[in-house]
Amino acid sequence: MALVREELHVSVTDPVSASMNFLNEIAERFPDAISLAAGRPYDGFFNEADLTRFIGVFGDHLRRIGRSERQVATTLMQYGRTNGFVGDLIARLLATDEDIQVPADAIALTTGCQEAMVIVLRALCATPRDVILAASPCYVGITGAARLLGVEIVPVREGRDGLDPAEVARVAAEVRASGRRPRALYVVPDFANPSGDCMSVDRRHALLAVAEDADLLVLEDDPYGLFGVDDRPRPKLKALDSDRRVIYLGSFAKTAFPGARVGFIVADQVVVDATGQQTLLADELSTIKSMLTVNTSAVGQAAIGGMLIESGCSLRSANRDRIAFYRRNLQALASALAMSFPPAERERRGIRWSEPAGGFFVVVDVPVVADIKLLELSAREYGVLWTPMAFFYGDGDGDQSIRLSCSALEPDRIDEGVRRLARLIADVSP
Amino acid sequence: MALVREELHVSVTDPVSASMNFLNEIAERFPDAISLAAGRPYDGFFNEADLTRFIGVFGDHLRRIGRSERQVATTLMQYGRTNGFVGDLIARLLATDEDIQVPADAIALTTGCQEAMVIVLRALCATPRDVILAASPCYVGITGAARLLGVEIVPVREGRDGLDPAEVARVAAEVRASGRRPRALYVVPDFANPSGDCMSVDRRHALLAVAEDADLLVLEDDPYGLFGVDDRPRPKLKALDSDRRVIYLGSFAKTAFPGARVGFIVADQVVVDATGQQTLLADELSTIKSMLTVNTSAVGQAAIGGMLIESGCSLRSANRDRIAFYRRNLQALASALAMSFPPAERERRGIRWSEPAGGFFVVVDVPVVADIKLLELSAREYGVLWTPMAFFYGDGDGDQSIRLSCSALEPDRIDEGVRRLARLIADVSP
Repeated sequence: MALVREELHVSVTDPVSASMNFLNEIAERFPDAISLAAGRPYDGFFNEADLTRFIGVFGDHLRRIGRSERQVATTLMQYGRTNGFVGDLIARLLATDEDIQVPADAIALTTGCQEAMVIVLRALCATPRDVILAASPCYVGITGAARLLGVEIVPVREGRDGLDPAEVARVAAEVRASGRRPRALYVVPDFANPSGDCMSVDRRHALLAVAEDADLLVLEDDPYGLFGVDDRPRPKLKALDSDRRVIYLGSFAKTAFPGARVGFIVADQVVVDATGQQTLLADELSTIKSMLTVNTSAVGQAAIGGMLIESGCSLRSANRDRIAFYRRNLQALASALAMSFPPAERERRGIRWSEPAGGFFVVVDVPVVADIKLLELSAREYGVLWTPMAFFYGDGDGDQSIRLSCSALEPDRIDEGVRRLARLIADVSP
Repeated sequence: MALVREELHVSVTDPVSASMNFLNEIAERFPDAISLAAGRPYDGFFNEADLTRFIGVFGDHLRRIGRSERQVATTLMQYGRTNGFVGDLIARLLATDEDIQVPADAIALTTGCQEAMVIVLRALCATPRDVILAASPCYVGITGAARLLGVEIVPVREGRDGLDPAEVARVAAEVRASGRRPRALYVVPDFANPSGDCMSVDRRHALLAVAEDADLLVLEDDPYGLFGVDDRPRPKLKALDSDRRVIYLGSFAKTAFPGARVGFIVADQVVVDATGQQTLLADELSTIKSMLTVNTSAVGQAAIGGMLIESGCSLRSANRDRIAFYRRNLQALASALAMSFPPAERERRGIRWSEPAGGFFVVVDVPVVADIKLLELSAREYGVLWTPMAFFYGDGDGDQSIRLSCSALEPDRIDEGVRRLARLIADVSP
């Protein structure tokens, strides 16, 4: 029998999925092109010996706290608690690195941060009236999760200097006036993907005040937080959150390794039922988690647990090399851009980018329509890949901007990639 | 701030979730009670050395097929292909053990079989008209997945001798007549959870014929297929499926270990779009998978891959000990029931069960309402846990039946558990 594609769920055929598939296809068709598109961590940080050592360290930890051999084996291999078994280590990590104080039972382990988004959106959005606001341009993971669940995402446009809390208040009021209910705002305060923006501390406070006024939760996604270009303290929204309005979404993909597929949700909100009984939101989320993936891979949790134990529950300390590497790369990207697009040419052609304060990405405004046609030409004739910013808007916007990523490459490749990009732009500019 | 429980998504507060939570709570409150409720695999099959060896074996396999150290490390630790990297080994497994011939690219790895259900339901059900039929009583995983997505499940009642294809045809026609579209039938042909039923080969053929007539897909879930009480061949629906109507859902939770959280979907259906372009359903499912969990834990896949390589891609051979163990346990449960409920008493009180042909479960009809109140009494006063069958219906049915599981215990504990159950039934029977 044959199935009809248009009769499958909309998430299969939706334009963002199609764009992402197209990007992957192009990367496969032109394997020798330099990819300034890939936002994955650098391959050189991975080795098999670390992986097995982490699992061993975690097993030893279990023995040290009194578990029998049988209990160690069942922890690593049997079904387990829905919300996972390394919440205590993550609570210590959050206290050590971020001064976030939460009990272990407010932490739900997830199959990467993507599942965390699906779980939180599912829990919060009970009816079509319940919508999520999201800083725009926006990570495709959250829009994908929303599409699967039929949840509406209302964009809050970032200005040139990032997300403005006043704009959040305005959009929230507009949504409420329309009869819908804004449940939460999704935001990446530190080095957003794709914009690379970092929110100032004043704006963080202002955003929390807006959230309280507008009765919004804040979904703080933080995959890149460790990778600032300097050591300036950047308090997480969750660390400033005296009213338990922030649900913190954690990832180990960039700070440990993506193959573990381990992320987490900090959900210390109190939930009250009609009888007045109180639970933690994390407990309610576990019901949803059990219907999605039962529990998070024990092997993955053990590997992350071992890494945490080895580093004294400090990713900041475990990631010294990576922090230095990604800093150097971001500087290499900034230098390459400055070199390949000298000020006069920038001025003449209207080329522009912001100096990012950290993360993996720089957005560059270019004087041409940067669509998948141009991307294909770029891959084929110029040997360089990048991501059209239009992918991150979904409303036709961003069509003259591109996202450059520098996480997966060595600096000399970044340099060469940007030179190739400059040749493309020079050739196709009006 | 406090959230209101009743304003969270219905899946959080739904009665089946509440029942399952209650079951878990009871198990925690009475840790010394013998659990004839737990359907998890036996703990004694797990040990840490196996786990690290499996991962090592898989790494060696990658080296043998020519991968560099860097490539081995990125396979184990980096982001990977959405549909996973052990599809080729699973294709060999299916050919070896089940005579199912499918190409590796028709196989999508998933975060356990639970995610497989979510992905397939999401893909097939595009509008509220699209519904799924399910043999009833029904595994709570499929109803949970449906509830998350707002997909309607229409029960097809099993008779005393299991699922009748004619009943499937009747319900499918009824659904279609009501203006809805039955997209697929969910069924566990071998030793269903909870009923323990095994479908005859004739009925398997008849079911496929009905599926063709009614234009239904069949979702064949097969977590227990290896654990028959004898070696009689029981062809999978997928092995009989000449028309590509069967989507096979695979699990390694019982045949390898649940902590890997690795399952898979065989989706070799052709999908045609409006322009006539053809893809495999597995490729379309990967788009949904990418929005749920990005990809399946590489560490989990490596562990399962290593186990497959070690066994020559035969779970049947890797599971010789487990097959013997679960057979012995099912016989122990049957003997204990026969001993504790002698024929005369069975007759007098109206106690009844079917001799199962395999799997982990036996359903017993009892002469009392077997609800959570009775379960609590059973746990507290008699020291034995079981599962009310009403949990698996969801329409108030099954209130005088219980499911007994024998997978997690040694035979002497099964024996003692059933003796305790018999005392309970004797004391509370009218």
